[in-house]
Amino acid sequence: MTAVDDLDLPAATEVSGPSRLSEPGAGISAEELQLAARNHGIPLEALRYDVTPAGLHYLLIHYDIPELDPATHALTVDGAVDRPLTVTLAELRERPRVTRRVTLECAGNGRALLEPRPVSQPWLVEAVGNAEWTGTPLAPLLREAGVAANAVDVVFTGADHGIERGVEQDFQRALPVADALREEVLLAYEMNGAPLLPQHGAPLRLIVPGWYGMAHVKWLRSISVVTEPFQGYQNAQAYRLRQDPDDPGVPVTRIEPRALVRPPGFPDFMSRTRVVRPGPCTVDGRAWSGHAPVVSVEVSTDDGATWAPAILDESTDGDFAWRRWHYEWSPQPGRYVLSARATDASGRTQPVEQPWNRGGFANNMVQRVEVAVIPE
Amino acid sequence: MTAVDDLDLPAATEVSGPSRLSEPGAGISAEELQLAARNHGIPLEALRYDVTPAGLHYLLIHYDIPELDPATHALTVDGAVDRPLTVTLAELRERPRVTRRVTLECAGNGRALLEPRPVSQPWLVEAVGNAEWTGTPLAPLLREAGVAANAVDVVFTGADHGIERGVEQDFQRALPVADALREEVLLAYEMNGAPLLPQHGAPLRLIVPGWYGMAHVKWLRSISVVTEPFQGYQNAQAYRLRQDPDDPGVPVTRIEPRALVRPPGFPDFMSRTRVVRPGPCTVDGRAWSGHAPVVSVEVSTDDGATWAPAILDESTDGDFAWRRWHYEWSPQPGRYVLSARATDASGRTQPVEQPWNRGGFANNMVQRVEVAVIPE
Repeated sequence: MTAVDDLDLPAATEVSGPSRLSEPGAGISAEELQLAARNHGIPLEALRYDVTPAGLHYLLIHYDIPELDPATHALTVDGAVDRPLTVTLAELRERPRVTRRVTLECAGNGRALLEPRPVSQPWLVEAVGNAEWTGTPLAPLLREAGVAANAVDVVFTGADHGIERGVEQDFQRALPVADALREEVLLAYEMNGAPLLPQHGAPLRLIVPGWYGMAHVKWLRSISVVTEPFQGYQNAQAYRLRQDPDDPGVPVTRIEPRALVRPPGFPDFMSRTRVVRPGPCTVDGRAWSGHAPVVSVEVSTDDGATWAPAILDESTDGDFAWRRWHYEWSPQPGRYVLSARATDASGRTQPVEQPWNRGGFANNMVQRVEVAVIPE
Repeated sequence: MTAVDDLDLPAATEVSGPSRLSEPGAGISAEELQLAARNHGIPLEALRYDVTPAGLHYLLIHYDIPELDPATHALTVDGAVDRPLTVTLAELRERPRVTRRVTLECAGNGRALLEPRPVSQPWLVEAVGNAEWTGTPLAPLLREAGVAANAVDVVFTGADHGIERGVEQDFQRALPVADALREEVLLAYEMNGAPLLPQHGAPLRLIVPGWYGMAHVKWLRSISVVTEPFQGYQNAQAYRLRQDPDDPGVPVTRIEPRALVRPPGFPDFMSRTRVVRPGPCTVDGRAWSGHAPVVSVEVSTDDGATWAPAILDESTDGDFAWRRWHYEWSPQPGRYVLSARATDASGRTQPVEQPWNRGGFANNMVQRVEVAVIPE
């Protein structure tokens, strides 16, 4: 019952330091490991599933998973609206029901591969998943509330509470009004045909097809329309593309194109290097972009020196779900590095060299899969 | 289509090196991070649930998650038996059905806190879960097959295939015959009332209540009774308590006692330090042991200098499920380190100093939760 040091009254800034970059060559820190142990990516072999099963979809949870009661949960809509509303989860379930397959990717995917490495959740390439989200469209609800003519942003507040870079907060993110009114945006209460799991935002979350994960506010409890640009931490400070700490930067929004290879053969436990037998081998994976449909995927088996076209499977799941691609390979014994590179209809593609920014956001550098082709 | 170096035919040993220890002070390596990004622990706030929800239970997958068809999956029982058997999943589902709550913990839990650190999956303290497993008891099936009088071990083989420390293998683990015939051992096909998820061994796995995770063979496809001690990699090489590489060591078997604190208050995003308000605060968590029932839990709020008894909640879920405990705390502003320490009916308890072995196994050093008590 005794404070370790009664005279040392801690200040929030002592438990919550500023952002930093790792020292050149430094390994992953204990703090980064704590995040990696609780959040997780998709095991890459799970790229085999069109729809990512529960528990294999990536997870990034800023604070703790809150515990909310679906029987009493309600969503408020207020601020610059004509008719503030409170709707229960049961009422939301009675509204028009829509199911969409949507690829979600963490804005920080790829961060741990950057040099220097921004110190945060240390993703390699696996912070992605493609699920089937069911809910009711947001736009009609906003229209019922009557968004003011001078509205600028729509602020979404979750029930998750924490402190980040010295700022105590409920997780809050705003969308520009035009983005919040897109017909694809959902208030989702089911994932893959079952009620949301606690870690995916139960009982209610936002789904903003095409945007990085930070926009898809989990544990959603209120929506507030504002007439000035929202200056909350997650919009104005955290999720911005900047080269140095003083740079105001530009907001992180839609998902840059990316392709991932489903690693062929079987792995070594520790290095995850793949062992493949010589001879015919179908290499496949998934590709997606939040800007425009993926129009091509190229594959390299020589660490990016040369590229060959892959075959894109038919797209049946709409513009915001990943698409399978495949490539027929027939390697001789030797060592290879496999990569895939997606290009979308907007002309965006993936760089081979790292696109660096201080948060490590929207980084879509191509994946490298080390393969040893060894006879049986 | 060209090998990077045609003259360099890779050998299995080049992709799969020997075990090693980290250099003093070295951060987590890229290889360890790859494992941490795909496997994951329980987010500690999920200690609130009696039964760990899907996707929050810890996962340790040595190779890749295999894809098996439940409609055609069958289990063979052969070796030193009178009547070799093949049973389909449908036939197993028609046999007597049992549901048990069982705490599973990875044998390597706590490894990343050791110095020097064994280089493998870098767990902190979170490699645990408590699920409801449904299946049919193994012992009657073995008795139907007729285990030979001179049988020594029962070998369980999964469908997951990989290479580990130079040894290509399907994941295989043996239990001594007497342990395999324990009435609590299950052939499980459901978890928390639903068919097994791919990552938890779909469509069939072994559950060995009280033992560390490596015994609960996932994606189970065959059982073979042998009359000599099994010398497979996971029994004879991997899961052994040894001080140096030449030491044959002793097998890792049952779970050592451990208590975990559900971190109170709310977290800082990066450091995971907890912020708590001054005044009354119920601290709680879970405790378990695979050797004998937990009989006491003590709590320290001063980094292990002094300990006070916690209250153990009633045990309703059998001897192999974790048990809730709680402790009423009323801190003044200051800095604290919370820990909990479980003792079981066999007299085993948790050390404050690290119990070191080369694999980092069965390490139940007490958890440290850093808390800052800060007025609102």
